[in-house]
Amino acid sequence: MNSFLEKLTAKWDQGKFICIGLDSADFTLNQKVIDQTYSLVCAYKPNSAFYEAEGIKGWESLKNTIQYIQKTAPEVPLILDAKRGDIGNTNEAYVKAIFDDLGVDAVTVSPYLGQESLQPFLQKADKGIIVLVRTSNPGAGEFQDLIIDVKPLYQIVAEHVKNWNTNSNLAVVVGATCPEELKKIREIVGDIPILVPGIGSQGGDLEATLKNGLNSKKQGLIISSSRGIIFAPNPREAAESLHSQIQEILQHV
Amino acid sequence: MNSFLEKLTAKWDQGKFICIGLDSADFTLNQKVIDQTYSLVCAYKPNSAFYEAEGIKGWESLKNTIQYIQKTAPEVPLILDAKRGDIGNTNEAYVKAIFDDLGVDAVTVSPYLGQESLQPFLQKADKGIIVLVRTSNPGAGEFQDLIIDVKPLYQIVAEHVKNWNTNSNLAVVVGATCPEELKKIREIVGDIPILVPGIGSQGGDLEATLKNGLNSKKQGLIISSSRGIIFAPNPREAAESLHSQIQEILQHV
Repeated sequence: MNSFLEKLTAKWDQGKFICIGLDSADFTLNQKVIDQTYSLVCAYKPNSAFYEAEGIKGWESLKNTIQYIQKTAPEVPLILDAKRGDIGNTNEAYVKAIFDDLGVDAVTVSPYLGQESLQPFLQKADKGIIVLVRTSNPGAGEFQDLIIDVKPLYQIVAEHVKNWNTNSNLAVVVGATCPEELKKIREIVGDIPILVPGIGSQGGDLEATLKNGLNSKKQGLIISSSRGIIFAPNPREAAESLHSQIQEILQHV
Repeated sequence: MNSFLEKLTAKWDQGKFICIGLDSADFTLNQKVIDQTYSLVCAYKPNSAFYEAEGIKGWESLKNTIQYIQKTAPEVPLILDAKRGDIGNTNEAYVKAIFDDLGVDAVTVSPYLGQESLQPFLQKADKGIIVLVRTSNPGAGEFQDLIIDVKPLYQIVAEHVKNWNTNSNLAVVVGATCPEELKKIREIVGDIPILVPGIGSQGGDLEATLKNGLNSKKQGLIISSSRGIIFAPNPREAAESLHSQIQEILQHV
């Protein structure tokens, strides 16, 4: 079994940077989207909330969706977008839920409780642990932009994540809606992967994202789109269009 | 249907301050704990992680546990400890999962994405929205204690929560392991409820918690214990012991 980073890097080596957010508990829709797009993506990212909203049936759909990807496209890494984060003892239970029961390759987590609380996640060296740094929502700056001494909180969080990364399994979340912050965060974290939501419905800038977010190997980005692809009349065309735009921009950045 | 705050206040009026954390997906154990303790508590608080860890069976146990409390002790408010927090569109799905599907009275949320993202929660005026401010884990201070200008981040978060509270449905989480921070937070938030985990296994100080955390009405605290009660040989005795200690301290604080 390859690690999350190995699977992801193999996709980047093929020029694939799109991550599709499977933000619907409709398993039939998910099958269609996966069938049409798995050859174009570097990752799939179901968001737990949309499955939990449907109760037990939703949880079943999440498991089925994960198993369908593992059967259809086992080489595509799977990120559970769940923004989890609790005290250590509780995070051990989340690790069991996410990596043992659901069996995904990576998870998004919240930094608010600090490294000590996140240890159960950080110790999973073969998994991807993707820490929220600067999020894509309009009000993200309320706390994330507060100035500590001379720099904003999100930069401090990025510096800490860089230091926590002794297992080379960490990544960060930075919204496509804030390209200047993305540039600064790339400077701070070096070559580690950055998951960038906010392309598509949220209006993030693709060119600025690539220009400011690529790492020293011209890789390192997981560019996520959800509603703009999964609810498109033709998800394959929507994904191809985004893929082509990325290829075009990659020629000159 | 009474609101979370009304149900909680009714329990405080009866001198009940204990919240039991139902942190096990064992439904038979939960039934036993509920049967033995419902007359002593101001709330129950299942933590989602321990149910998710058991997959679909765990989710079923969570629903069964919630329904069992609603049948056995409908007047006891139910808090889902889930530390959720995503962008607004996703939080709408969490609101559906937590309040429509599971049907609890309150939920814990993370502040990192700010008020704008939390709107779907904040608008539920009859529910309790309990925001992480200063957590009980040993490494909580890594970000929460960073100084913004002249005060730590957790105090800024407390000030913002106080300002967000136009629907009188907010509460905050402050660990029993940090009584000085609790004192400061009580000064900031006024009379709003404070959920205090960390009594019992985590070693929080009960006397300091009551002294520093009670509000102007000598109420306002949800004192949570999980492992120390649910895994005790006799959960009723463990809960009675904690209840008695609280009564004794209340005589002189």
